[in-house]
Amino acid sequence: MSVIDFLFGRALRSSEERSEKLGAAAGIPVFGLDALSSAAYGPEAALTLLIPLGAAGIAYIAPITISIVILLLIVYFSYRQTIEAYPQGGGSYTVAGQNLGAFAGLLAATALMIDYVLTAAVGISAGVGALVSAMPTLQPRTLPLCLAILLLITLVNLRGSRETGAIFMAPTYLFLGTLGTTILVGIVKAIVAGGHPRPVEAPLALPAASAAVSLWLLLKSFASGCTAMTGVEAVSNGVAAFREPVANTARRTLTTIIVFLAVMLLGIAYLCRAYRIGAAESGPGYQSVLSQLIAAVAGRNIFYFVTIGSILLVLSFSANTAFADFPRLCRLIAQDGYLPAPLAERGRRLVYTWGIITLAVVCGILLIFFGGVTDRLIPLFAVGAFLAFTLSQAGMVAHWRRKGGARIHILLNGLGAVATAATVIIVIITKFVAGAWITTLLIPLIMLMMFSIRRHYERLQAQISEAAPLDVNKRTSPIVVMPMMAWTRVSRAGLQFAMQICTEVHIVHVTSEGGDKDLASSWRKIIEEPLRRAGMPMPQVKVLKSPYRFVIAPIVDYVLELEKKCPGRQIAVIIPELVEKHWYHNFLHNRRATWLKAALLMKGDRRIVIIDVPWYVDD
Amino acid sequence: MSVIDFLFGRALRSSEERSEKLGAAAGIPVFGLDALSSAAYGPEAALTLLIPLGAAGIAYIAPITISIVILLLIVYFSYRQTIEAYPQGGGSYTVAGQNLGAFAGLLAATALMIDYVLTAAVGISAGVGALVSAMPTLQPRTLPLCLAILLLITLVNLRGSRETGAIFMAPTYLFLGTLGTTILVGIVKAIVAGGHPRPVEAPLALPAASAAVSLWLLLKSFASGCTAMTGVEAVSNGVAAFREPVANTARRTLTTIIVFLAVMLLGIAYLCRAYRIGAAESGPGYQSVLSQLIAAVAGRNIFYFVTIGSILLVLSFSANTAFADFPRLCRLIAQDGYLPAPLAERGRRLVYTWGIITLAVVCGILLIFFGGVTDRLIPLFAVGAFLAFTLSQAGMVAHWRRKGGARIHILLNGLGAVATAATVIIVIITKFVAGAWITTLLIPLIMLMMFSIRRHYERLQAQISEAAPLDVNKRTSPIVVMPMMAWTRVSRAGLQFAMQICTEVHIVHVTSEGGDKDLASSWRKIIEEPLRRAGMPMPQVKVLKSPYRFVIAPIVDYVLELEKKCPGRQIAVIIPELVEKHWYHNFLHNRRATWLKAALLMKGDRRIVIIDVPWYVDD
Repeated sequence: MSVIDFLFGRALRSSEERSEKLGAAAGIPVFGLDALSSAAYGPEAALTLLIPLGAAGIAYIAPITISIVILLLIVYFSYRQTIEAYPQGGGSYTVAGQNLGAFAGLLAATALMIDYVLTAAVGISAGVGALVSAMPTLQPRTLPLCLAILLLITLVNLRGSRETGAIFMAPTYLFLGTLGTTILVGIVKAIVAGGHPRPVEAPLALPAASAAVSLWLLLKSFASGCTAMTGVEAVSNGVAAFREPVANTARRTLTTIIVFLAVMLLGIAYLCRAYRIGAAESGPGYQSVLSQLIAAVAGRNIFYFVTIGSILLVLSFSANTAFADFPRLCRLIAQDGYLPAPLAERGRRLVYTWGIITLAVVCGILLIFFGGVTDRLIPLFAVGAFLAFTLSQAGMVAHWRRKGGARIHILLNGLGAVATAATVIIVIITKFVAGAWITTLLIPLIMLMMFSIRRHYERLQAQISEAAPLDVNKRTSPIVVMPMMAWTRVSRAGLQFAMQICTEVHIVHVTSEGGDKDLASSWRKIIEEPLRRAGMPMPQVKVLKSPYRFVIAPIVDYVLELEKKCPGRQIAVIIPELVEKHWYHNFLHNRRATWLKAALLMKGDRRIVIIDVPWYVDD
Repeated sequence: MSVIDFLFGRALRSSEERSEKLGAAAGIPVFGLDALSSAAYGPEAALTLLIPLGAAGIAYIAPITISIVILLLIVYFSYRQTIEAYPQGGGSYTVAGQNLGAFAGLLAATALMIDYVLTAAVGISAGVGALVSAMPTLQPRTLPLCLAILLLITLVNLRGSRETGAIFMAPTYLFLGTLGTTILVGIVKAIVAGGHPRPVEAPLALPAASAAVSLWLLLKSFASGCTAMTGVEAVSNGVAAFREPVANTARRTLTTIIVFLAVMLLGIAYLCRAYRIGAAESGPGYQSVLSQLIAAVAGRNIFYFVTIGSILLVLSFSANTAFADFPRLCRLIAQDGYLPAPLAERGRRLVYTWGIITLAVVCGILLIFFGGVTDRLIPLFAVGAFLAFTLSQAGMVAHWRRKGGARIHILLNGLGAVATAATVIIVIITKFVAGAWITTLLIPLIMLMMFSIRRHYERLQAQISEAAPLDVNKRTSPIVVMPMMAWTRVSRAGLQFAMQICTEVHIVHVTSEGGDKDLASSWRKIIEEPLRRAGMPMPQVKVLKSPYRFVIAPIVDYVLELEKKCPGRQIAVIIPELVEKHWYHNFLHNRRATWLKAALLMKGDRRIVIIDVPWYVDD
């Protein structure tokens, strides 16, 4: 057990829950890494689609970023209200489910779940991708590096919320500090230089324009840039994880995250324009927008490398938001019976162990399948997040109307719903062919699975519940069947137990050769004589021929036949089992007891009971 | 079951054994592939070491081959006698064990087992290697190809001896036919041309000499060529697999194999000399000796490709000899208690299933570890085979002396022992550094394991055997402990069974929250009232607090404590278990019943009995 303690920490009492709660400072790395790290790829994603416009394209990054930031603020105010209204944890699932019905809730939840899985895989792979492009010798190690980071994040999350916050705090604040400083210094330099600062290191030359500007292109750029907004719902989903006063702490965390993100997005857009930095085509000589920007503002010195390093770390660890929220979301759905019940159980460190493991496994499969390079998954993104946003805002509108909330509340959430709904439509249309169709196909499939899980639970409940009171008249003792190969202390222990619980024993002996026919008679002395002397009932000895050398099948057949012959009686199969001290000694035996138990459980029915009489080997 | 029937064939009755026996024609592919395929690599191995001698080296292939063939004939006559003396199967293990003691027997067996594993891995990898060098586009598929062939051979062998013979017969006789024809035509051509035939296609140019001839070099070449002799013991090991008259059929099979092998070895050596063919250095432009030889005799036409193709097949399938013999050898050792007992059990097709699977797994691990290229394993070879030969011959000498056999018998086997012993020494000395040291290290380790297995069985036997007769006075009924989460039909079934077998029931309820304290009281109506009315004893209800949310541990602890408090009584833990119809529904439950059973079995002792009361879900 000490290995487990070392890896996952000692078990936590349920009463220690309070000390696992998060303050705002720790909440940012736990729930905000996904949103904040978007600053590193959102602007790049928008600028990449502007490449065909050449130098002229850079002019459009400002209005696009401003639109995104306005959308972000709408969503922010919207979620602030949600936190207030649902301090017990108001994710899209809860809000949409309680106000628009179970279907809407599950639709939002499914969309979010897909998004979390994608966030985790793409985040890790983006971080490792950036590292590998900085150190090309690591190229062949891409997949192992991805899996190592996945394992690290999984382990940290299994250790509990508080430790996760503590561990990811340093890289988060390093990232905010260095990138924030870069942006601040850049803006000051630009203003001092009258809007046209001289770059310390010149950014890449912008290509010639190869296309004219069009609404379609700008919409696509906007939709791509919107990936920067995934992860914003994380805080409202995990309100319950925060310290008292819960709503207050959660709101403070959300505000901090959004302010940082908005400032970074606007700052980057401004500096791109001032320094004339555009996205580069991938290929040799490629440099990311942020790399160009930092080099332009600060030069390629130690500060540059620290900043780039912190970006890599934050990108890889952005997967952590998924690990914080996915299990909590699964737990809520599982509590309502739409997902397997174990997902709702808290493990030894008070986190939802099975949710974390599920996410890690699915994410690992994606990483392995794509060899650690998940670029092709990026277009699948954002559909889920914005679908969940929309349903959650719409749910809030319904909530206020039912509760008779202030008009301003309805207005804010309504605005949020309309804006995010419009964005969903733009994202689906502009990215449909590139992969968003996969998401729109996956969502109904997963929902179908959820509904059938719920139906299964309901049927099961109907079958096992409303049990009648104990029936005291049904007391005929069971018939015992016991397989016996030879008279050893192991089988003796079994028979001795059989005699304690009933008077009708069938001893079954399977023989393939026909050579041990007189075994039954040799047992007479050992078994029958003592019984006769005591005037007790005799066991029946059945010799079963097995021409195919099978041992399990004839015993199971005998039990099933006996059950048919004795309606209303229970058949107890006693299986004497030799238990070795060390697991590797199991290889020395044919483990028939184990197989027989499994076969009986598989082929048996409610009247057949399996009794395991273990006989432990002494050292 | 039909998938299993399709893959492995229907189960065979023990009485069908006779029809599974092999005639000489089928015996050659089953037991002879290893020996016969040696013709494809033995001469090459010897010639490779003669490369430094340049053109002059070819002269030495004749005396070296003749020495090998003489050794082969000595061993052949030796084994003929063994077959006669041990018609029930006289492998080195049996002969050495019965005549020189268990230690010698196990030494021979271990040496052989290592050799079989190596044969299987190297055979498959050599065949695939030859195929890949013919079709370089397959290069990246080396390992998958190796594993596919391994899987094929494993499956075929699991289907039984007779089918193995039938399936491998065609490639074996194609190989013998085509290579035999090549050698015959080549010899006729050479004689007609007065010993200096004109090659249809000229063989590779021989390199200039870079070293002078030395005894050390010739010994090394001889030792390498001796790999051609591995697999010769296979027939004597598997005599029992042959048709009546057993010894006769086996002897005929052995004779055929040896005659073919000797003729091919001598023919190849003669033609190498006549056509001036030597081994080529590996690298670009490499051609195997046989490829040069066939092209020289017949040209590069369709016959060439058919012959080369049959050589590839036979090389890959030479692993089959290992699959025929290794399980039979393991079975004999397991019967004596030196290997796990399941190795001695015959599966549904009358073959030793676990032996086949063991060989396949070990061989697969080797192939995966070496990426399908097992050249580095070749030097490990032959030590085992010759060690086994020596011990077996020496054993036969002891056998004849004890039985008072004819002097000619003693002489023949003695000659064999001395010759093979000398070869072992040469092989170990010449190949020690290259890898033979691994074999000499592995042998004692494996033998150590065998002796400790035997010791474990002996101790176990002492513990479980000599059981006393049934004790009829020990009839106090057990105390039943039953965990219960809620009153459902599942738990009702468990309690109902408890009442059939005893009067003292402890119901254990684990709670982590403390919220269901009054559960016990709500059960009063359902459980206690009916019992009270019937005047029956009440069950005790124990509520166990679980601050860490563990459920299994508190129950196990309770059971262990109760056992301590009630010395001499048996504790029966009733575990009501919900059984789903479909395996995938198991994911919907926390499977606590399974875990509890496992935990009780692991931590329990002889007085704790586990009763599984299954409750099957209706469709």
